[in-house]
Formats: sequence, C-alpha cells, structure tokens
Amino acid sequence: MSLAPGELRIVPLTGVPEVREDDDLAELLAAAAARAGGLEDGDVVVVAQKAVSKAEGRVVRLDALEPSALALAIAEDADPRQVEAVLRESARIVRMRGSLVIAETRHGFVCASAGVDASNAPAPGWLVLLPLDPDASAKRLRGRLAELTGRRVGVVVSDSFGRAWRQGTTDVAIGAAGLPVLLDLRGRRDRLGYELHATAIAIADEIAGAAELVLGKTNAVPAALVRGLRLEGEGAARDLVMPPERDLFR
Amino acid sequence: MSLAPGELRIVPLTGVPEVREDDDLAELLAAAAARAGGLEDGDVVVVAQKAVSKAEGRVVRLDALEPSALALAIAEDADPRQVEAVLRESARIVRMRGSLVIAETRHGFVCASAGVDASNAPAPGWLVLLPLDPDASAKRLRGRLAELTGRRVGVVVSDSFGRAWRQGTTDVAIGAAGLPVLLDLRGRRDRLGYELHATAIAIADEIAGAAELVLGKTNAVPAALVRGLRLEGEGAARDLVMPPERDLFR
Repeated sequence: MSLAPGELRIVPLTGVPEVREDDDLAELLAAAAARAGGLEDGDVVVVAQKAVSKAEGRVVRLDALEPSALALAIAEDADPRQVEAVLRESARIVRMRGSLVIAETRHGFVCASAGVDASNAPAPGWLVLLPLDPDASAKRLRGRLAELTGRRVGVVVSDSFGRAWRQGTTDVAIGAAGLPVLLDLRGRRDRLGYELHATAIAIADEIAGAAELVLGKTNAVPAALVRGLRLEGEGAARDLVMPPERDLFR
Repeated sequence: MSLAPGELRIVPLTGVPEVREDDDLAELLAAAAARAGGLEDGDVVVVAQKAVSKAEGRVVRLDALEPSALALAIAEDADPRQVEAVLRESARIVRMRGSLVIAETRHGFVCASAGVDASNAPAPGWLVLLPLDPDASAKRLRGRLAELTGRRVGVVVSDSFGRAWRQGTTDVAIGAAGLPVLLDLRGRRDRLGYELHATAIAIADEIAGAAELVLGKTNAVPAALVRGLRLEGEGAARDLVMPPERDLFR
C-alpha cells in the first residue's frame, strides 16, 4: 500500500467477529490488519467504543437495573431501566427534554445518554456503557498491538457524539494513546507573518470522524486503520475535554 | 490511484497559488487535481473557506470599518475595527467574554467571531469573511469543475469551528453540493434487529475534518480530494444547522 506525498489512506478492518467479554481485542484487530496488509509504524488504529466496552465487560442487563423515582418520572416512552442506566453513568445533567438526557460523564465528556446505548449490544435486553478509562483502554491496546506485531501504532477509541447547534453526530476520540490529540498552532505564522490564533486543531477527533466514514454502523466493521498522518507526540483524549473555567457552555 | 474495497484516500491538492478576487477557483483546483492524477466521478473536493471567500471578494479592509460603541466597549486588547466586523457578520450573539464573541451567522452557523478572521488574509490590514451563501459557492464550483473536467464530483466548503465542551477546532462543512450531508440511519437495524436511533451521521462534517488532516494551516494547501466515499444523494450544508425548535443549546 503506497502513499503519494501528504496522502492519507483510511482502510476498514473487516472480518472482526462479534466481541465478547475478555476477548483479546488487540489480537482480533491485529488479525484484521494482517488481512489488510499489516500494520506499519506510525499507523493509527481507530476502534469503535462498543468493541472496547464489550471486551472490557462494560455492559449491563436491563433486568439488573431498578429505576429510581427520577428515572420513572422522566422515562415517558423510554424504558425506565435504560434511563436509570443513563442517570447512573452521569456525573452532571447538562440538559433534559423528556427522556432525552445530555449528560457529563465521569470522564468529563458531554454527550447524549451519558454514552449508554442499546444498539450493537451483546444481546437483546443489554446496554453498552462507556469504558471506565478509555485512554487506559487505548494505551493497553497500543501496548498489546506492539507485542503482537512489533509495530508502534497510535490507537484512538471513538464514539459518535451529537453537537450543540449542528445536526447529526460525528465520531470523536474518547480514548487515545501514541499520538497527539491537539495540534497546537500558537506561534505559527501564515504567509504574511500573521500569527494563527486558533488555539489548536483537535486532530484526534478529526481522525475518529475520518475513520467513521469507512466504519458504517450496521455492517460490523468496528475498526479502521489510518495511514500517512506522520504525527509526533503523545496525548490523551481527556485533554480534549474543555476545562470548566474555559467552558462558555456549562 | 487504486483503492482497496471500502478504502478512502485523502489527497492534498498542492501548488494552488494565492487566490485573488475574481480568480476562477475551479480552474485552479482542476489544475491541482490534474497534477494529482485527475478527478474521478464520485470524488469529493474539499476546499477551505478562505480560498472561496477570497475568490468571491468576501474580504474587508480594517481601515474601512468604523467601530461602534459596542465594539469599542468590548475590544480590550483586540482591534475594535476587527470586533466591528465580527458584530456586523453576527445575526445573534450566543456568548461574549471580553472580545471573544461566539455568534450565530446569517447562515445559522454558531462559531467564534462569526467566521471573521485575519489569518491567511490577502494582505496585512485585511479580514476574510464567510461567503454570503457557501452552499451556492459549492454548487458553482461543482458546476464549473464538471465543465472543465467532465467529472461529476461533490464539493465541500470547509471551515474550522470550535465546539462546546471540547478543546480545539475541527473542520466542518459550511457549504456542500453534489453529496448528502447527513447519513440517516433511522430504520436501519443492527445484527440483533435493534433499530439504530441516532438520527443521522453528519458525514459532510466528517469529510471536512478528514480533509483538514492533510490541509495544514500554514503551508498553503487550500484543498483536498477525498476518493472512495461512494455516496448517493444531494444535500446542502444549511441542513446541518440545528433548527431552533430542536436546539437545546440556544
């Protein structure tokens, strides 16, 4: 797989079986990457949060959830047990409209339903929760991929988040290891010497979004390989969370 | 340039000269694409808003701006004439902190400084404004590219927007033609038959973000080619604006 100068390639990692608790996800990803020609140093492997959560056992049975009074009060057409899971995963409620909850998670991410989702669950009646520490998940996957393949790659754990003011979701990085997450432009100058004042580009989010374009939601492609980025540095997705004191939209 | 099944390639369009008012931007892009091997039907050309705005003469001299009382009051360390330009481009102020203005533009986009920017301007002392109708800009570029190359491509006009709750900017689509902007998943089902309830994926934003990864901010690459998307349909970036009645964050 050759690259023209400056070019990026985004390759779906196909043939990954349904992920179950305690699966060696890195082994499944390495096998899929081998079928696509193998990993190279500097590649970034983007893996969907659902696959990571399922491998880590971050799933819960609806039947195991006792809805609180609040969950029952706001559930409307939704399953109050699922609303209960959302409330338990929430560190702060940002907005509520009926059973739709926009929450801040324990990680500081602001997203619908605190990341709780019934789609692509292990079985009917189950919910998938976000990993407890998605940056640590990414770091473990990166380490295990190095063991298995001898390659030093970046890993991004991605999830689909809605946005304020814009329709639709885009995939963003909720975990990252082995790559910078923000490309800081401060101090760089344009052709005329004007200092670029945008703080930074959230490249890990753009990488997650780019990978989403080849993932598809229904055809069981949980990961993609991004080649050609030539990034240096190390960051964590937690650095993408806006600190409260800078956040104009808390 | 061959593609593996499902693969995407993102190719920077290099060697585009500094764009000036009344330049035939499509001709400059077609020439750059020819140097990269030529356009193919179904390609998406992503072009940075700055290039589009400059070709359309959407620039203003600081000296031509008389600051209002409000601009003078909030300017602090900023140039009150630049703040004046921001206020004139704003249809609604969403947040203000000192001279930092988060505004809704006439197009409905919510972004910092209403899209007004001094970087990559035609000359010192000039500002670049957003195109008046970026969807129309995209449509014109698409039509002219078809005339020049015989190829039917999609066009996305991209700009870097900050986000609520997350650090850094990502590029999003402020104009689009010849491709769908939202991929609607409603009605599609996962392996277990569970209906995917995310409304839609904002693929035009993910395409803009993916292209940003090869654009770079300082090295004069104003456009990129995305190949392998296999999209059908037609949308406009204005469809990415959240309607006020659904917007929880107005």
